[in-house]
Amino acid sequence: MKSDIQIAKESELKPIKEVALELGLEEDDLELYGKYKGKVADEALNKLEGKAQGKLVLVTAINPTPAGEGKTTTTVGLGDALKKQGEKVVIALREPSLGPCFGIKGGAAGGGYAQVVPMEDLNLHFTGDFHAITSANNLIAAMLDNHIQQGNELGIDPRQIVWKRCLDMNDRVLRNVVVGLGNKMDGVVREDHFVITVATEIMAILCLATDLNDLKEKIGRAIVAYNYKNEPVTVADIKATGAAAALLKDALKPNLIQTLEHTPAFVHGGPFANIAHGCNSIKATKAALKLGDIVITEAGFGADLGAEKFFDIKCPVAGLKPDAVVLVATIRALKYNGGVAKEDLNTENLEALAKGIVNLEKHIENLHKYNVPVVVTLNAFVSDTEKENEFVKKFCEEKGCRFALSEVWAKGGEGGLALADEVKAVLKEGNANFAPLYNAELPLEEKIKKVATEIYGAGDVQFEVAASKQLARLKSLGFDHLPVCMAKNQYSLSDDPTLLGRPRDFTLHIRELYVSAGAGFVVALTGTVMTMPGLPKVPAANNIDVNGVGEIVGLF
Amino acid sequence: MKSDIQIAKESELKPIKEVALELGLEEDDLELYGKYKGKVADEALNKLEGKAQGKLVLVTAINPTPAGEGKTTTTVGLGDALKKQGEKVVIALREPSLGPCFGIKGGAAGGGYAQVVPMEDLNLHFTGDFHAITSANNLIAAMLDNHIQQGNELGIDPRQIVWKRCLDMNDRVLRNVVVGLGNKMDGVVREDHFVITVATEIMAILCLATDLNDLKEKIGRAIVAYNYKNEPVTVADIKATGAAAALLKDALKPNLIQTLEHTPAFVHGGPFANIAHGCNSIKATKAALKLGDIVITEAGFGADLGAEKFFDIKCPVAGLKPDAVVLVATIRALKYNGGVAKEDLNTENLEALAKGIVNLEKHIENLHKYNVPVVVTLNAFVSDTEKENEFVKKFCEEKGCRFALSEVWAKGGEGGLALADEVKAVLKEGNANFAPLYNAELPLEEKIKKVATEIYGAGDVQFEVAASKQLARLKSLGFDHLPVCMAKNQYSLSDDPTLLGRPRDFTLHIRELYVSAGAGFVVALTGTVMTMPGLPKVPAANNIDVNGVGEIVGLF
Repeated sequence: MKSDIQIAKESELKPIKEVALELGLEEDDLELYGKYKGKVADEALNKLEGKAQGKLVLVTAINPTPAGEGKTTTTVGLGDALKKQGEKVVIALREPSLGPCFGIKGGAAGGGYAQVVPMEDLNLHFTGDFHAITSANNLIAAMLDNHIQQGNELGIDPRQIVWKRCLDMNDRVLRNVVVGLGNKMDGVVREDHFVITVATEIMAILCLATDLNDLKEKIGRAIVAYNYKNEPVTVADIKATGAAAALLKDALKPNLIQTLEHTPAFVHGGPFANIAHGCNSIKATKAALKLGDIVITEAGFGADLGAEKFFDIKCPVAGLKPDAVVLVATIRALKYNGGVAKEDLNTENLEALAKGIVNLEKHIENLHKYNVPVVVTLNAFVSDTEKENEFVKKFCEEKGCRFALSEVWAKGGEGGLALADEVKAVLKEGNANFAPLYNAELPLEEKIKKVATEIYGAGDVQFEVAASKQLARLKSLGFDHLPVCMAKNQYSLSDDPTLLGRPRDFTLHIRELYVSAGAGFVVALTGTVMTMPGLPKVPAANNIDVNGVGEIVGLF
Repeated sequence: MKSDIQIAKESELKPIKEVALELGLEEDDLELYGKYKGKVADEALNKLEGKAQGKLVLVTAINPTPAGEGKTTTTVGLGDALKKQGEKVVIALREPSLGPCFGIKGGAAGGGYAQVVPMEDLNLHFTGDFHAITSANNLIAAMLDNHIQQGNELGIDPRQIVWKRCLDMNDRVLRNVVVGLGNKMDGVVREDHFVITVATEIMAILCLATDLNDLKEKIGRAIVAYNYKNEPVTVADIKATGAAAALLKDALKPNLIQTLEHTPAFVHGGPFANIAHGCNSIKATKAALKLGDIVITEAGFGADLGAEKFFDIKCPVAGLKPDAVVLVATIRALKYNGGVAKEDLNTENLEALAKGIVNLEKHIENLHKYNVPVVVTLNAFVSDTEKENEFVKKFCEEKGCRFALSEVWAKGGEGGLALADEVKAVLKEGNANFAPLYNAELPLEEKIKKVATEIYGAGDVQFEVAASKQLARLKSLGFDHLPVCMAKNQYSLSDDPTLLGRPRDFTLHIRELYVSAGAGFVVALTGTVMTMPGLPKVPAANNIDVNGVGEIVGLF
């Protein structure tokens, strides 16, 4: 099998204006970034206002394991399959982050014969959205410190600054820094922290903004610090709203690229799926729904994090009503959940499969709570056996789910035809009647309990002392009715990453609570979240290069 | 008179592919960034290899004063005038930096009716070149600290790290920072510094690279630190060359935009004119020379810094032979040099003019040392009187220079026709016989002395103790035969910014020497240079905004 980048490079791309044309967009509706990338202009989207909406399908997965699940690959392959069947389909994905490309993982844009392209551009600067976010975030930080330097009229408490600087780079030494050293003209000394750009609130805001005015409102109410009276100081207070929004005006426009099989794909925005909501932008999803009859989108990590936040944060804000969910699993991941070591995953093991399938079971039950029909798909690996596949198929049918094997990694759209059939059957039945898990008007602690018990399967929720204090403060500041954004490890349904399968009756510990007042959610941390990755001993960057004719090598 | 942004907004732009077409570039030769910006693909430039070169005209100025000179405005207006006369002309400018837009100065792209557009894009993210440079610079920094963290095989001395992180932002608190705080996994604690992106060596390298392979060579030999044996450690040593070059592959391609009168303008690269060489990229200048019959370019600050470095650093590396120089002055600036206070510059004062014109005189003499004919132009202000203009005209003619009044700020190309006539006359005479001031093989201290005495007019050069030690070290490391890049204040020909006019017999003090081994020059500092600006009490950012239909306001 060829490498991802080899396949991507050998593919013949269509000029993106042709892909757009097939969607009904004219050349003037597109702002080109080279021949194969475009942003859809606001005017084009405004023209679509009255148009009927397509059907919305979310692709999510069981808890991720080192064995790999292939959520993006499935999303892309399903789109390609539907296109092959003559459907007017649009894909909506998150943008990958630049920083991690140079660390362990190389690129990220699907895999095998189910990829979005141009792969190198997507993984490097793409259309500059993340750079714009970095600039806007850091402008706000500079204006904050400048306010303190120039007399601190607002009485900002340098010990209570919550706005962090950022870079789209894996750079561990920036996690904890001291800034403002030197002399009087070099600023006020304080402790500061850099996060990676995808972890910024500006990223979450961009993805949850419905238009430019909404973007500005959200930026303006984001909290940068607290003053000496413990009152919040916002971006609007330091007069940085307009300039930050000016930096984001193009970044807010959805990016259109294509799959290897020329299926149109909006790839736009990419917030973390722990401290943020882990979905692509509302602007892109809405554009896709106006332009396509079927829209395939995905959300970060497993369904406990990604799908939950898609349903409980993104959908209510955007007024979206998903029509179906595709739940991705692999035989290998299910066996891993059943206790098989990574080295032994290629051996048939029906016993382990039966033990690990409880993870899939719990996710099916969870998704049904949102009143959306579920299609389970197995992302095929060469080591899977017929007996193993049959076991999972039967299990799903007993749970009232449709099932299909997916071979899109090896075969592209052709390998996703069976899955496409099941998805279309579900859409035709039209049984979806989406409702979020909770009403946002519930008190914060009730919303947290609902997610913990009904989605994670916790027996109880315990607020640590600090979290209880923070809860009281957030309530007094008027944030009780925001949705909650749970920051939990992605590997387990519980807050203990080693508890695989379907843990029961555990206690979920809430260690910290804070508000992302601009994005519009309260983050509940159940453990520590790494918001600035580091580079490994031998970084991928050592092997990344560009040859004399401008071709990137070493991205994979 | 309307504001710059008002004029820019009211102008009707041509699609950039039409501007390119007039230059002989086909649509496929251009990588579009929206409708009005494009990068010229390498393939297009390769096709031009054998083509004859145009004539090269440098626009430079007397020492800058608070009165304003208008070098970029003149460059743009002269281009427009030549176009009006039917010449195939191309302009080549530097890109403005994002950071300072939010500080005091707002935008930068010429002025009045002599501007390059789209002005807002140019001043914000443009085509992402500076973001790419920021990323490449900071990737190298992250890999450097990661090398130390992961065992420090190269024996890098954390006290001798010379590679700084950067942001394209005015952010004073980042001038002096401590990084790596926290615990074992958060890196090695050390002092660090951020500079603004235009001050990085990567910026200078990008502008001096002749192609992608040359870019990689230059990046690879840039020094990031010294080891415990005091030997240099390079970017190649920490294996960051390829990844950094991959990040810069698109940034290396020249950007094509247009003036208000649709004259093609390459706007590409923008290194500092003190610690770096202050010129647009070699790639862009060479592309312009292949595509145009006349190319108008400019260099930073006054002729003592910008023109000197253009002639002694850029031209030798690029193999360029300039054909003429336009030297810009204003009546107001000459009077300021003659001792008039800023408030009184609008009053006719022939005595002060006669006193201050020695600054112009020295620059004329300097430029003649390069064997290139000089056309002096006065950038007209409404307060200038006929007598004052006549005085300057006569002075120039006595000095053997052509002279023309320029009214491009108020009238666009129409206001530059007289200047265009003089420039064409000089080009027709063909008397240029360019040679740099010094042979790079001279020892470093001789090259510094030559610039100090022959260009600045110093009587003597004194190396401070630290600089003498550094000189010896640089010689021992094999850098004796690099050109010198003088870092001097821009206001005076001397190293004392208060000595206006034509200071004589002063001693120039060399305080520090270091090598930019990648860019290929030795920097000689005659004073402190601010490489990370701060924001003022009321930053321009307070008033920058974007309205509901996506229009930027508050840039000026």
